[in-house]
Amino acid sequence: MRLATFFLAAALSAGVLTSAATPARAAPADPQARAVAAIAASPAFKTAAATLAAEHERTVADIVTLTEIPAPPFKETERARAYAEMFRAHGLSDVEIDPEGNVLGLRKGAARDAVKRPLVVIAAHLDTVFPEGTDVTVRREGTKLMAPGVGDDTRSLAVLLAYVRALDAAKIRTRSDILFVGNVGEEGPGDLRGVRYLFTQGKYKDRIGAFFSMDGSDASRVVTGGVGSKRYRVTFKGPGGHSYGAFGLVNPMTAMAGAVQGLYRIEAPAAPRTTYSASVAGGGTSVNSIPNEVWTDFDMRSESAEALARLETQFRQAVDEAVAAENAARSTRFGPVSAEYVLIGDRPAGATPADAAIVRATLAAISAQGYEPQTQSSSTDSNLPMSLGIPAVTIGSGGVGGRAHALDEWIDVAQPESTRGMTAGLLALLAVAGVER
Amino acid sequence: MRLATFFLAAALSAGVLTSAATPARAAPADPQARAVAAIAASPAFKTAAATLAAEHERTVADIVTLTEIPAPPFKETERARAYAEMFRAHGLSDVEIDPEGNVLGLRKGAARDAVKRPLVVIAAHLDTVFPEGTDVTVRREGTKLMAPGVGDDTRSLAVLLAYVRALDAAKIRTRSDILFVGNVGEEGPGDLRGVRYLFTQGKYKDRIGAFFSMDGSDASRVVTGGVGSKRYRVTFKGPGGHSYGAFGLVNPMTAMAGAVQGLYRIEAPAAPRTTYSASVAGGGTSVNSIPNEVWTDFDMRSESAEALARLETQFRQAVDEAVAAENAARSTRFGPVSAEYVLIGDRPAGATPADAAIVRATLAAISAQGYEPQTQSSSTDSNLPMSLGIPAVTIGSGGVGGRAHALDEWIDVAQPESTRGMTAGLLALLAVAGVER
Repeated sequence: MRLATFFLAAALSAGVLTSAATPARAAPADPQARAVAAIAASPAFKTAAATLAAEHERTVADIVTLTEIPAPPFKETERARAYAEMFRAHGLSDVEIDPEGNVLGLRKGAARDAVKRPLVVIAAHLDTVFPEGTDVTVRREGTKLMAPGVGDDTRSLAVLLAYVRALDAAKIRTRSDILFVGNVGEEGPGDLRGVRYLFTQGKYKDRIGAFFSMDGSDASRVVTGGVGSKRYRVTFKGPGGHSYGAFGLVNPMTAMAGAVQGLYRIEAPAAPRTTYSASVAGGGTSVNSIPNEVWTDFDMRSESAEALARLETQFRQAVDEAVAAENAARSTRFGPVSAEYVLIGDRPAGATPADAAIVRATLAAISAQGYEPQTQSSSTDSNLPMSLGIPAVTIGSGGVGGRAHALDEWIDVAQPESTRGMTAGLLALLAVAGVER
Repeated sequence: MRLATFFLAAALSAGVLTSAATPARAAPADPQARAVAAIAASPAFKTAAATLAAEHERTVADIVTLTEIPAPPFKETERARAYAEMFRAHGLSDVEIDPEGNVLGLRKGAARDAVKRPLVVIAAHLDTVFPEGTDVTVRREGTKLMAPGVGDDTRSLAVLLAYVRALDAAKIRTRSDILFVGNVGEEGPGDLRGVRYLFTQGKYKDRIGAFFSMDGSDASRVVTGGVGSKRYRVTFKGPGGHSYGAFGLVNPMTAMAGAVQGLYRIEAPAAPRTTYSASVAGGGTSVNSIPNEVWTDFDMRSESAEALARLETQFRQAVDEAVAAENAARSTRFGPVSAEYVLIGDRPAGATPADAAIVRATLAAISAQGYEPQTQSSSTDSNLPMSLGIPAVTIGSGGVGGRAHALDEWIDVAQPESTRGMTAGLLALLAVAGVER
């Protein structure tokens, strides 16, 4: 149990105490819901929400500016530099690009106790799935913006800036410091490297008490479960040879086939949901050669770290048994078949309990904006803090969008829907960070 | 039993009768050996052999000229045109490029009965394995010529021209017409399309009684067995889906794995030698997706057409069973897994019996030049006639060479070795075609 868990409950109680002074209606039973209702009803928050609406076109302009700076996995630098400049222009303090490439900027909480209180982080990811050279020009048709990466997750980067402006305009002082983050490495190959650094090596690593990832559009969705994954490329190697002349020698393809078949004989539990897939295959040089080398990419996932670890053990056993079976079945006189594992993805599983303050506050904030909240499990930046026991949720940036990861990705910034979704997130953030009166 | 088999025996007996008039030493027991010895001892043949030696540099020049005309599979046209011109310049009659792209030129036999007698074909293949854009400039260092395709099979093309000049210089009239051929499509993707056309559609198809393929250098080697092959690309298709969200759906990768494992459970006979290989694999799009489509290239070979057909049946059974097993094991609610077969190679098996006249004559001719003859099975243009019961062998063009199919392919045209190998081939050809006195 880390400090974080304790902190969150305390902070949220504090939030309740702070802002529960002006309930006009019957107070909800849940303290988090009461806190949210109180903040929502406060004049300061109303000013903040009005600012989000008033500055809508500014936010849209930021979305366009940031989307048009390419940020392929491992090549987020240019966008990071621009985003850091924006953090500075917005008056955040301690703005920096950390050694992993994450952009960090602090909005200090109430001087009285902020330095002693754990940080609340709100992060959006800088990277997109699109490779270098992709045309990232934003095309606008009415309220629709079309460009690769515009919704996943560039819109969120702009929303974070809008939050800073709204809080400043409303002169809202939070009790906790809020660390605004534009992080690297959320998409596939990045393998959560940005948040991994933040939580395990970065200078704030021991101060973070709650984590919001803002990822995707849908404001009614809250990710409270982090589906963990382990991904391997397994390369099966052997001596190879002429398909006719060397017939009888071990074939790495047969070992690979045995491994796939072995994996698919494993019974994965339905709860906690645990899955696997043999997904991509390659290798071999010509039809008339026993291959020297073939490979398969394997994906394993689970809501439970234990179930994932158990599956991984069974999987490696299946691979090793297939290799041994092939070496027993055919001649190894020019060498045996072997399997080489390369870990190509490692996202820890985790979950934030349904009764955690951050979950209840976020659900209440979403409801307060008139949405029907949906909790779900997914694989997002929140996996990392969840796996460490740090309360975390992933929320949407508001508005509507579609075709994420496709070249025809789009978002709709129509009002008032766009601002309504943003307001839900801001409300959740404030409920968790606490608001000074 | 085709006419061909009868013809050959008859032609060879005729050859024996024709040239057995001047044996100086104890005549060999075997009639083919006697015929070879008689031809070898004849003044005309000695003139022909001397011409091969005298025109050595001309032959080398032709090798260089032809090698430097690129002839990738299915792109043999430019080389074919040049070769047809050379046939015309050498005075062959009925020179043409047939609809498949083979260059044909006739050297008429003795008028008396040649038109009634089946043809003897000697063929070299025009195509090389090298793709368009490969630098085919010949580099010469002393007697070594280096260039892609120089030995396989361009040298043979030049040797055929040398034979025409030698026969003309020696005023040798054969009893049978000899059809000189530069054929297309011997290498992998060509799949024997040149000789297939020659024997099944070309205008001489019903007249061919014996077939020599000259392929590669080694003059001591005679290919008398045609290893047949069937090659399939099997594409396994399924509905695909998200590796986590759609877990439980059928996976074509698992069917593919089952097919490979099933194939490798088949006991292939050691005699007639029969082999298989799962050689190349591919497919799938991303590690987090159940693939829509994966494929494997399979190679099956046998010295026996029956054994090959049996293996093919067992193989298809293994594939179909693997598909059925996968459809039974997992959900097909978005569609089942299926297998699609594309035949990517089909070389018929066959053999020319060890006691066939063409084999005995060729072995005797090779021995007469002082080599230790070696018979073997391989996959060459001779497969096609062998599969039709037409006596056929594949012989070498003489000299030494190496690194066929590699960019650093080379041959050595050092004398007298180079001419000695060529002479063996000419002797075999004459023994089969018969020589008029």
